[in-house]
Amino acid sequence: MGGDYAPYYVVEGAVQAVQESQGRFAVTLVGQKDRIDEELRKFPTSEQLSVAHASEVIDMHDAPNAALKTKRDSSITVGVTMHREGKGDAFVSAGNTGAVLSASTLILGRIKGVSRPTIGALIPTESGKCFLVDAGANVDCRPRHLFEFGVMGSIYVGAMVNTENPSIGLLSIGEEDIKGNEASLEALGLFRKSGLNFFGNVEGRDILQGKVDVVVCDGFVGNILLKFGESVPSFFKAKFKRFAAKNVMNKLSVLVARSGMRTVMKELDYQEHGGVPLLGVNGVSIIGHGGSTPKAIKNMIFRAEEFIRRGVNTKIEEAMKRFNG
Amino acid sequence: MGGDYAPYYVVEGAVQAVQESQGRFAVTLVGQKDRIDEELRKFPTSEQLSVAHASEVIDMHDAPNAALKTKRDSSITVGVTMHREGKGDAFVSAGNTGAVLSASTLILGRIKGVSRPTIGALIPTESGKCFLVDAGANVDCRPRHLFEFGVMGSIYVGAMVNTENPSIGLLSIGEEDIKGNEASLEALGLFRKSGLNFFGNVEGRDILQGKVDVVVCDGFVGNILLKFGESVPSFFKAKFKRFAAKNVMNKLSVLVARSGMRTVMKELDYQEHGGVPLLGVNGVSIIGHGGSTPKAIKNMIFRAEEFIRRGVNTKIEEAMKRFNG
Repeated sequence: MGGDYAPYYVVEGAVQAVQESQGRFAVTLVGQKDRIDEELRKFPTSEQLSVAHASEVIDMHDAPNAALKTKRDSSITVGVTMHREGKGDAFVSAGNTGAVLSASTLILGRIKGVSRPTIGALIPTESGKCFLVDAGANVDCRPRHLFEFGVMGSIYVGAMVNTENPSIGLLSIGEEDIKGNEASLEALGLFRKSGLNFFGNVEGRDILQGKVDVVVCDGFVGNILLKFGESVPSFFKAKFKRFAAKNVMNKLSVLVARSGMRTVMKELDYQEHGGVPLLGVNGVSIIGHGGSTPKAIKNMIFRAEEFIRRGVNTKIEEAMKRFNG
Repeated sequence: MGGDYAPYYVVEGAVQAVQESQGRFAVTLVGQKDRIDEELRKFPTSEQLSVAHASEVIDMHDAPNAALKTKRDSSITVGVTMHREGKGDAFVSAGNTGAVLSASTLILGRIKGVSRPTIGALIPTESGKCFLVDAGANVDCRPRHLFEFGVMGSIYVGAMVNTENPSIGLLSIGEEDIKGNEASLEALGLFRKSGLNFFGNVEGRDILQGKVDVVVCDGFVGNILLKFGESVPSFFKAKFKRFAAKNVMNKLSVLVARSGMRTVMKELDYQEHGGVPLLGVNGVSIIGHGGSTPKAIKNMIFRAEEFIRRGVNTKIEEAMKRFNG
């Protein structure tokens, strides 16, 4: 029931996922049974698809923690609980990010040694991708939290993006070790002595340049940066429009360039790429953008499968043991 | 002596400024006299130009506070001191930002009622400009500091950009009043009861959309955002290059669109526009980008003149009295 186009896009994405799954997994759609069944009727029936009823819906405007308390039979709570009970190996949602985050943390619990579960976002760079962590889950962070984000992010990228020994950068206001705010300066010390592949401080300009594989920041900075990045295509569109309006030559050049611009601008839309993982919980929880298309939903389901297959959580647990021991 | 192209760009910019000044002001070039004189010889002599010798140079790699202590005869210290002594009505530099900031704060002192002087940056939006404050001067901020940044930013925009009663937005992770980190949530309360034209929280995506005239954040976030924004054109350039390499049609369309793209991308380069003001000190101090061109230097000088003419500091002092009283 999550996302701006629920349940139809979610159902369609799930249908596509099982169709392409070659029988490897089944999907249980959690939510208001009659509405989901109505959507399912539009597609060929499949034994890999089932429905679990949940009467309530937490929407994008609900305050996460309040909603989890008042809507006890929400699709999020029911779905995450099914996952904890072993009725599913992963939970995937395009719903209220804060609610999925809270429900997953509360119901699944944290991996041993993890102080704060986090979400990360894979964003495009000039040369490839980089994983920004925390992407908005934790706004006020202690140095230890930032350090753990780096550890979990590095494991995720190593396992899921096939980057050998990913490099970690700590987002700051200068490259030198003396630059930073209170929390980042202390976190820098933790990274320096960790033995991880730590690059050092990185600046705002280094993100899109792809200087490192993992960029660590608190969720306040991460959220603001991601939303800023998302707004860049619209900014350029407005500017090109104004440029085109100046004269016929400009107009023609923009017309000719339009498809190219569309292709390139789309790359900044990191949410095309299939959801962000919740890292540090005892389970698999993938959170998608509210505007997730069926394709995005499908990609999230495949990403959840891969998350399990690559043993991300086992690796996180081992790392935490190492850094706590 | 400040900036990557000192002294030649700085001298050239100063020469241009006095040429266009219609005799309204004179410029004293502060720094190593022989090197400056050598540059000045390239231009027609002018009675509006003079040189004040300072033997030392603080460069971009110097740690600001340490450098101010060890290089007591630096062009920054000498120049700011001349300003305090009334030998100049404003100080303009493309040098080490931190050093200009510290020297200005220490030597000029703060305007009564101001806790922390700040720097702001005027950045382009879809519809015009917005003033981001703090742009990097203060990394760890208390709620009161954020509030003062908003007050000073609003006065600056009102006086210098001719925006009547500028709207102020507090940068956060959601629009609702419950969204934010500890400092921003408390600052929100201060803004709400201030009687200022306060819009409320704004998100990362609202900046370029131009939702408000003044965006308030701490200098850690501000610095990271500005540098991220600066790197966007290079990102798109790399992506367009890759797009063009795919086939001849793509290549042609990018060739045709090149001049338009250059025009539009340049708009993100906020530093073209003539330096950032230091707000809250007892004086006028304009800080330029290290890469400032002669044109940027010239614009900074004109901006300093305007800053004086518009009585920005008197307005700040009056506002602080109002909010402290």
